[in-house]
Amino acid sequence: MRATQQHTQESCQKTLLDRYLKVRQQTLALCAPLEVEDYQIQPMDDASPPKWHLAHVSWFFETFILKRQLPSYKVFHPAYEMLFNSYYNGVGELWPRTARGLLSRPTLEEVFAYRRHVDQYMSELLSTRDTSELRFMVELGINHEQQHQELLLTDLKYNLGNNPLKPVYLEPVPGFSTLSDLCFVEFDGGEFEIGADPGAGFIFDNESPRHRVLLRSFVLANRPVSNGEYIEFIEDGGYERAELWLSDAWNYCRANREGQHQKRWTSPLYWSCRDDGSYWQYTLGGEREVDLNQPVCHVSAYEADAYANWRGYRLPTEFEWERAASGLLVEGNFIETGCYHPSGRVITDTSVKKPDLELMFGDVWEWTSSGYTAYPGFKTFAGQLGEYNGKFMANQLVLRGGSCATPQTHIRATYRNFFYPPDRWQFSGIRLATDMDHV
Amino acid sequence: MRATQQHTQESCQKTLLDRYLKVRQQTLALCAPLEVEDYQIQPMDDASPPKWHLAHVSWFFETFILKRQLPSYKVFHPAYEMLFNSYYNGVGELWPRTARGLLSRPTLEEVFAYRRHVDQYMSELLSTRDTSELRFMVELGINHEQQHQELLLTDLKYNLGNNPLKPVYLEPVPGFSTLSDLCFVEFDGGEFEIGADPGAGFIFDNESPRHRVLLRSFVLANRPVSNGEYIEFIEDGGYERAELWLSDAWNYCRANREGQHQKRWTSPLYWSCRDDGSYWQYTLGGEREVDLNQPVCHVSAYEADAYANWRGYRLPTEFEWERAASGLLVEGNFIETGCYHPSGRVITDTSVKKPDLELMFGDVWEWTSSGYTAYPGFKTFAGQLGEYNGKFMANQLVLRGGSCATPQTHIRATYRNFFYPPDRWQFSGIRLATDMDHV
Amino acid sequence: MRATQQHTQESCQKTLLDRYLKVRQQTLALCAPLEVEDYQIQPMDDASPPKWHLAHVSWFFETFILKRQLPSYKVFHPAYEMLFNSYYNGVGELWPRTARGLLSRPTLEEVFAYRRHVDQYMSELLSTRDTSELRFMVELGINHEQQHQELLLTDLKYNLGNNPLKPVYLEPVPGFSTLSDLCFVEFDGGEFEIGADPGAGFIFDNESPRHRVLLRSFVLANRPVSNGEYIEFIEDGGYERAELWLSDAWNYCRANREGQHQKRWTSPLYWSCRDDGSYWQYTLGGEREVDLNQPVCHVSAYEADAYANWRGYRLPTEFEWERAASGLLVEGNFIETGCYHPSGRVITDTSVKKPDLELMFGDVWEWTSSGYTAYPGFKTFAGQLGEYNGKFMANQLVLRGGSCATPQTHIRATYRNFFYPPDRWQFSGIRLATDMDHV
Amino acid sequence: MRATQQHTQESCQKTLLDRYLKVRQQTLALCAPLEVEDYQIQPMDDASPPKWHLAHVSWFFETFILKRQLPSYKVFHPAYEMLFNSYYNGVGELWPRTARGLLSRPTLEEVFAYRRHVDQYMSELLSTRDTSELRFMVELGINHEQQHQELLLTDLKYNLGNNPLKPVYLEPVPGFSTLSDLCFVEFDGGEFEIGADPGAGFIFDNESPRHRVLLRSFVLANRPVSNGEYIEFIEDGGYERAELWLSDAWNYCRANREGQHQKRWTSPLYWSCRDDGSYWQYTLGGEREVDLNQPVCHVSAYEADAYANWRGYRLPTEFEWERAASGLLVEGNFIETGCYHPSGRVITDTSVKKPDLELMFGDVWEWTSSGYTAYPGFKTFAGQLGEYNGKFMANQLVLRGGSCATPQTHIRATYRNFFYPPDRWQFSGIRLATDMDHV
Repeated sequence: MRATQQHTQESCQKTLLDRYLKVRQQTLALCAPLEVEDYQIQPMDDASPPKWHLAHVSWFFETFILKRQLPSYKVFHPAYEMLFNSYYNGVGELWPRTARGLLSRPTLEEVFAYRRHVDQYMSELLSTRDTSELRFMVELGINHEQQHQELLLTDLKYNLGNNPLKPVYLEPVPGFSTLSDLCFVEFDGGEFEIGADPGAGFIFDNESPRHRVLLRSFVLANRPVSNGEYIEFIEDGGYERAELWLSDAWNYCRANREGQHQKRWTSPLYWSCRDDGSYWQYTLGGEREVDLNQPVCHVSAYEADAYANWRGYRLPTEFEWERAASGLLVEGNFIETGCYHPSGRVITDTSVKKPDLELMFGDVWEWTSSGYTAYPGFKTFAGQLGEYNGKFMANQLVLRGGSCATPQTHIRATYRNFFYPPDRWQFSGIRLATDMDHV
Repeated sequence: MRATQQHTQESCQKTLLDRYLKVRQQTLALCAPLEVEDYQIQPMDDASPPKWHLAHVSWFFETFILKRQLPSYKVFHPAYEMLFNSYYNGVGELWPRTARGLLSRPTLEEVFAYRRHVDQYMSELLSTRDTSELRFMVELGINHEQQHQELLLTDLKYNLGNNPLKPVYLEPVPGFSTLSDLCFVEFDGGEFEIGADPGAGFIFDNESPRHRVLLRSFVLANRPVSNGEYIEFIEDGGYERAELWLSDAWNYCRANREGQHQKRWTSPLYWSCRDDGSYWQYTLGGEREVDLNQPVCHVSAYEADAYANWRGYRLPTEFEWERAASGLLVEGNFIETGCYHPSGRVITDTSVKKPDLELMFGDVWEWTSSGYTAYPGFKTFAGQLGEYNGKFMANQLVLRGGSCATPQTHIRATYRNFFYPPDRWQFSGIRLATDMDHV
Repeated sequence: MRATQQHTQESCQKTLLDRYLKVRQQTLALCAPLEVEDYQIQPMDDASPPKWHLAHVSWFFETFILKRQLPSYKVFHPAYEMLFNSYYNGVGELWPRTARGLLSRPTLEEVFAYRRHVDQYMSELLSTRDTSELRFMVELGINHEQQHQELLLTDLKYNLGNNPLKPVYLEPVPGFSTLSDLCFVEFDGGEFEIGADPGAGFIFDNESPRHRVLLRSFVLANRPVSNGEYIEFIEDGGYERAELWLSDAWNYCRANREGQHQKRWTSPLYWSCRDDGSYWQYTLGGEREVDLNQPVCHVSAYEADAYANWRGYRLPTEFEWERAASGLLVEGNFIETGCYHPSGRVITDTSVKKPDLELMFGDVWEWTSSGYTAYPGFKTFAGQLGEYNGKFMANQLVLRGGSCATPQTHIRATYRNFFYPPDRWQFSGIRLATDMDHV
Repeated sequence: MRATQQHTQESCQKTLLDRYLKVRQQTLALCAPLEVEDYQIQPMDDASPPKWHLAHVSWFFETFILKRQLPSYKVFHPAYEMLFNSYYNGVGELWPRTARGLLSRPTLEEVFAYRRHVDQYMSELLSTRDTSELRFMVELGINHEQQHQELLLTDLKYNLGNNPLKPVYLEPVPGFSTLSDLCFVEFDGGEFEIGADPGAGFIFDNESPRHRVLLRSFVLANRPVSNGEYIEFIEDGGYERAELWLSDAWNYCRANREGQHQKRWTSPLYWSCRDDGSYWQYTLGGEREVDLNQPVCHVSAYEADAYANWRGYRLPTEFEWERAASGLLVEGNFIETGCYHPSGRVITDTSVKKPDLELMFGDVWEWTSSGYTAYPGFKTFAGQLGEYNGKFMANQLVLRGGSCATPQTHIRATYRNFFYPPDRWQFSGIRLATDMDHV
């Protein structure tokens, strides 16, 4: 028994190390098509340079695991604690977020060496030690790195997409499909359990505690809003009609903002309208014509809300979304497909009884109307990691379901992403909802 | 029968006209202590000049009632439609909010004449016509004017309080009292009705529809946080400890903001700390020493949240607040007392069984953790008045209970006020809450 | 002999007091048409409220004369030293310039009382004491008040001119005339004396020392550029052609600047072009059609330079201007005419031999290409008054000749005014020049 | 005769091509120590990335020479015309200056290929054609590239010097020396010729026409102000005493400006004061202690003026400087020494009679009090190149003498450099002057 148990434990630990190394490798693989210069730049305050992402995720393992649990650990460079700290005031001073792109040193090679250094010690640690706390911390670090894989892609897209040369990151992988006809799926009201089940594997603190909520009957669109449908909104003067917009949204989208990229909005981010009336968009596979039958992407919550108003619908709450997604298989177009763009391709899920809902996972994050706040009884992670999620519970909205830039193993029905209402450089789209009695 | 009914109708209508005239008169009474110059200035973008308030509330009656329901109405000045439109894009162009203080014309005398002009035609209209729509519109206009009575006072306080001469608006009226000892009142969880009962008189659209919510058991402080308790937070380094603050809050309160009044926060608005360690605050009755036994006031939601964290508590949700306030008499220190400052004086309410909760109404608005969003099934007022409340349902938090600057007849348990988390020029304070099992 | 001398001295002193009182009275007279509200507002950072001007000029006499030379002087209000200090760091702290319009207190009445208080003590002082230092200080204070008379008018015009009601300050006084045909007057080169003769009465420090400069032969336009000529520039695309503009000018005039009044420039300040192609401008006498035969006004140095480029000319240097103006009588359209607008009316000067130059004084300040710098051997006024002129010798250009808002007794050929190149709320115009061999 | 002449012409042309290739090579040599990442970043709006400099100087040859004079020229990439246009509106649209660092593409390799492409065609052109216009244009292009060599170094220093890792660009080359004792050299007044002699080889348009100016007698310091002398100013509270500063300077240097590098000034750029009271500065050879006997560097004109005031002196005018420098050999510490820092080392000049003036050339640019304006009769270069210098004649001051980052063959006594008064990222220092009668 004992031997077996130990064997299993070794296997598990080996598995954890394997998973660690695999995720680390995936991060590097995402970078393979990049030029050194691409790693360096920060095209807006929110879009960190790839080099910074590479260093920061290593910093996370170094700061929260190696420095604490591996006595033999040798710090790679003392200044990195400050340089690659994202927002952990508890850890100490930090380099200003807005100046991440101004650090030409350390060089990319030095950051790669830093990664290898961390990987070597992590391998040593995971080969020699196994505690539940360590396992949790490594799981957290892995999930953290997955989040930065997505951010690295979205930030890179902002870099390349605002370059007038419109560089291609990778030639597009085939696999695009046509969206189904729009229809609405009905959901009865009642009391429902929301949030993650504690025994179900790694979860973030913000997904818990699981708790009951009361929902009214509602309907949810079978699929995200398509580009074609969104163009109807544009061409009906959607961006010019104040009555469709929230007050903050109207003031924001009408303003000429500083910097060269923030003009008055007239379409989703990365779109342009040519003289012949055709719409084009920058994708990581280069500039291409907007496909009317694909999910609209790179819209803010402000635009999502205005669109829904225009159609006579509303955005779902995060609870409605989770209730609808509950039990669905987590399948779809994720980062692993190498598509890096919403594909509209439905992976048929024969195991559940709600086949009507398509593309709940992958393709585009779906804005909800729910403010990102604490669930009743919420407790942050302990210690300095309490800053991971909790302190952002102000002014942001919840998005659900993951996108074509999310690792598949990272997402689940209870997962809560959060961005500010005007943000649109994420792969974010729209799924319509309304009250049952409204239809 | 017929005669009686008509008689009653006349009485009612007379009553409505009386109430209209009374509220209009109350607005003028609030202005009585002002100098002409006080009416003119706009000390920050959000704080409109009293002259503008006086004109705008008249504009409201003119635009939404007189121009539509009284064919004989003569427009006072054609430019006023644009100049005194607050935010109704549906009505037409509007003078920029940030430039309201830059209009030396029309003069105050002209604005008074405008008010009299509107009052005269409103009297004519209300003496000759009676429809449910008219009654609703007049009720709305009266409530609108009451809201601006409070705003006029808070904006005026920002004007005078930032003047180095610290002018006195009115000598303080006696009536201050000492807060009770802090304790917590328990509330069982369950399903509760939230929102206004449609038959209960005038309500705003944002208070409806009445709907059921699920609450966990919770406790609520018997009274608002006192100045003395808040000073403990200050002196424990509360404003210097990042771990207590939301991320947006920390960035905001640490910044040196433009303009002379927005410095790094170290205390509530209007406070100063003297060399001898005593705390002083500007009140509408002049500068006076902070009374440790009065409710703390002029704190933002960011500060309220940080304070609650520091105490190991949290802010209530708006549903918890409403469930606790439900059934309480609306009594307290309102604008009618002429105190214009939180008094801490409890009006004993012998009619209900929850005598433990003090000062739920009046004194200070109480920040909740609830984002200002639509209730399930929410419908805005019809037409252009749909812009009244609905379009502000983004980025703001709900406050409850009214303040010492709120008209008593304006407030109720279901009333939802809303401001941005950093705002603190309203009479806003803190009531602590937490989960029952947390205690 | 002695008696006579004393008598003369008394007369002189009486004259000085008379002049003091007269100038003080003129300031009040300028304010007579104003409403209380007009005194209060600050429509842009550079345009101080009339109330502030009224207080500041009194502050000047109080601070630099009464507090120092009259032991019996009683300070009117201790806070005024800070509130009405314009920019004298040597005197102490000062209220931020950008917040002058935010002080509703002291009220206008209090400021008038402050003026009377100062006048009373000044009368006492000037009746009892006579030293050359005192005489100089009073002369300086009188000239200072005259400068603020002009600023009061230009700031007031910015206030009223940006009010959509376009209020009339005073009905225009007749006296407009038609400009002469444009021609150019030749001036031979050589060495010339520039700057004020020390024995010639009051001068500012920046006009001295008188020194020799070397000039090449040049020609100067006989009169300022007219509105009609300037419209040709507009209609030839002048505001859209980068090649005509200085780099800083192009960047400035193309920008959409913050605030409601600073839009991309397409014409002089206060102008608008109607649908029928006619040009209108706000004047202190109200909105009226642009008179093609009047001097163009309210242009920045950037516009003046671009216009001159477009015409194939340049702006004169301040030395060329002074050499040309030397010996001319100081006659023209000044504040005393009550016109408050360029009139184009030439006061025939039969006493000199250069009758060709018209309107060198009055009507519009004329931009020169000369940076506002120290004359060789320049010494500032002594003590704290050294801040009066010297510290502004950076980034500004010299203007010459006075305007329709300048008191006639304040101006002379050696007088140097100075503003930043983009400034255009002064009554500033254009006189063309070029090298003799260029013609 | 003919043959000889042709031979000479070939030699000359060969020489021009040789010089072209040599300068191009020198630019690359300056870049040799850089990492790819260093080429990419733009640490402030004014400091362009090295990659951009490399491309822009090639763009200059392509745009103004190859496209016009070499019919066989093949454009390297059509988008480069816009991307690498610095400020020539006449050429067409241009990529925003503030976003130069946001272009990760073209890559450095592509920019190098662009350079080789241009060099190849330039070699072809210069081997086959020889006209005076071509010769002039190539000379201009060479001088232009030399200017960008200096800018590349100063911009790079801003990049590395604001990196907390304080990277070393190149180990410092020896050759530092001790400054002489400070004394003042007298210059008699009179009429002097200023500006470049047309027959004297390549000059910029802004150095001409040569013209006479009148100077009063003056004295000039024998050498620039030293670090030690400047520290006395710091330690005497120089940065805290308003009376020493121009008004614009005081407002500027006291402000907390946006971005991480623009704090309230307390010392020259790149300096820091350690706890032990020692002063350190970043140099391109790394962080090192400030040498009290070296010229102070990286001060703005505002600081230079305040320092001079504090010492009871003033800055020289550009005419005084040129009159003093006239006839001196152009020797000193230039970019060719590889020192990249002021050395204080005097190259003894035995050929002239003014041995007293040291370090007039090289080491540090010397701020003058002269606004950068047109000389009398100034004509810009023809055509689009008219934008080279003329349009910047506003708001800037002239600096003279070149610095340790200036190519020796680029500088001369009549050379006028120009920057804005607050700029201090150039190698700019101070030489004191005053009137003869002032001493």
